[in-house]
Amino acid sequence: MTEHLKVDEKTSRRDLVTQLDRENQAKIIQKLKQLLPDSKILAEEKQSGIENDKGLMWVIDPIDGTMNFVKQQEDFAVMIALYEDGQPLLGYIYDIMRDVLVHGGKGIGKVFNNEIEIKQPQNIELDDGLIGLSGPMLVRNVYHFQEIEEISLGTRVLGSAGIELIRVLLGKQVGYISHLKPWDFAAGNALAPVLNLKLRYIDDTAVNVLKSGVVLVATKKAYSAIINIVD
Amino acid sequence: MTEHLKVDEKTSRRDLVTQLDRENQAKIIQKLKQLLPDSKILAEEKQSGIENDKGLMWVIDPIDGTMNFVKQQEDFAVMIALYEDGQPLLGYIYDIMRDVLVHGGKGIGKVFNNEIEIKQPQNIELDDGLIGLSGPMLVRNVYHFQEIEEISLGTRVLGSAGIELIRVLLGKQVGYISHLKPWDFAAGNALAPVLNLKLRYIDDTAVNVLKSGVVLVATKKAYSAIINIVD
Repeated sequence: MTEHLKVDEKTSRRDLVTQLDRENQAKIIQKLKQLLPDSKILAEEKQSGIENDKGLMWVIDPIDGTMNFVKQQEDFAVMIALYEDGQPLLGYIYDIMRDVLVHGGKGIGKVFNNEIEIKQPQNIELDDGLIGLSGPMLVRNVYHFQEIEEISLGTRVLGSAGIELIRVLLGKQVGYISHLKPWDFAAGNALAPVLNLKLRYIDDTAVNVLKSGVVLVATKKAYSAIINIVD
Repeated sequence: MTEHLKVDEKTSRRDLVTQLDRENQAKIIQKLKQLLPDSKILAEEKQSGIENDKGLMWVIDPIDGTMNFVKQQEDFAVMIALYEDGQPLLGYIYDIMRDVLVHGGKGIGKVFNNEIEIKQPQNIELDDGLIGLSGPMLVRNVYHFQEIEEISLGTRVLGSAGIELIRVLLGKQVGYISHLKPWDFAAGNALAPVLNLKLRYIDDTAVNVLKSGVVLVATKKAYSAIINIVD
């Protein structure tokens, strides 16, 4: 997997891309275009041509957690979502190394962990769960992240939105907060509501699949607690 | 695995023990006593009777990362080490859910990832790697943790010393720092030096297997960089 890996920096030394991100994305786009020829594509490594959210649109992160992919060869994910007129129909988060595919959405009214339907996670409080947080945002204490950490049972910093989202969807973490691009939250936004979880911007507004922002996904109880802290 | 799990708090709401910690420890002690009848036992859930480090001593953490075990059912480990007169002979760290056993030590001069011998990780700099840090210590910025995070390529907070140690031993993280009890670092201390990694207290003194403290394990270059920041 790591043979001949060509690693480039994008916006900073912590923001990496490899030729496998690009190759993987090209293959995914080709397959999805065959499936729905009239669909639009919004993808991490090719950001152009999307002027509005009308019609069918695929949102693709070919490798989420590229730093983990490069350094750890684990804790990264492929994420794909299908939207129609800006509303999520289906989401797919694939943790390749664990061979765990979490997928589903409003389009089918269910979410699966591979072939097994996922039950709604317990609606636990912030102080009864582990919370996934962005490391740099925790250090800078934006949005009172340090208070959120102290109320929770502990923080986890995994370095991949996809892996963190899987943990929340499976009820392993009470929530996750980070600054996310559309392809980082698009699949999670298709999956979370089906499992009675809330996913919104940290200012308590609905996410827009064309707009980046700080996104909070959590059980309803933890969501309320965090919004109160952040306010 | 989580059927009928009885969870108790020890020193705080973040410090848990289950009957599986105790049962697992009892089974391990029984087996190790059969192997070396005259050996001493230092174990997380039974802390008594050890007055000095003379002779052969097993150091056991039956479930490292009990919070992860309870909440996530992953990212926990079993750790066992064998010491003689306070010096490490062998160490074993078993990541049950990934079925990864990292074991070896000075006693055999090698370290294995299951059956495959581990090569020495590259001696990379702090700014070229991911660093594992204790979440609460990062929040409180003890020992300039926040500066260490900023120099590194990013922090990871996984909630289990055993899982973090495996990442460092396999070259996936440049280092790991946390306040550790003897059973948290005993196996790592047997394994790290064989792979040209340094494991010492954060004040740059050798670890004592009977004494808790803030422990740093890292590549030699990252170790030097961190000691300079902490000083």
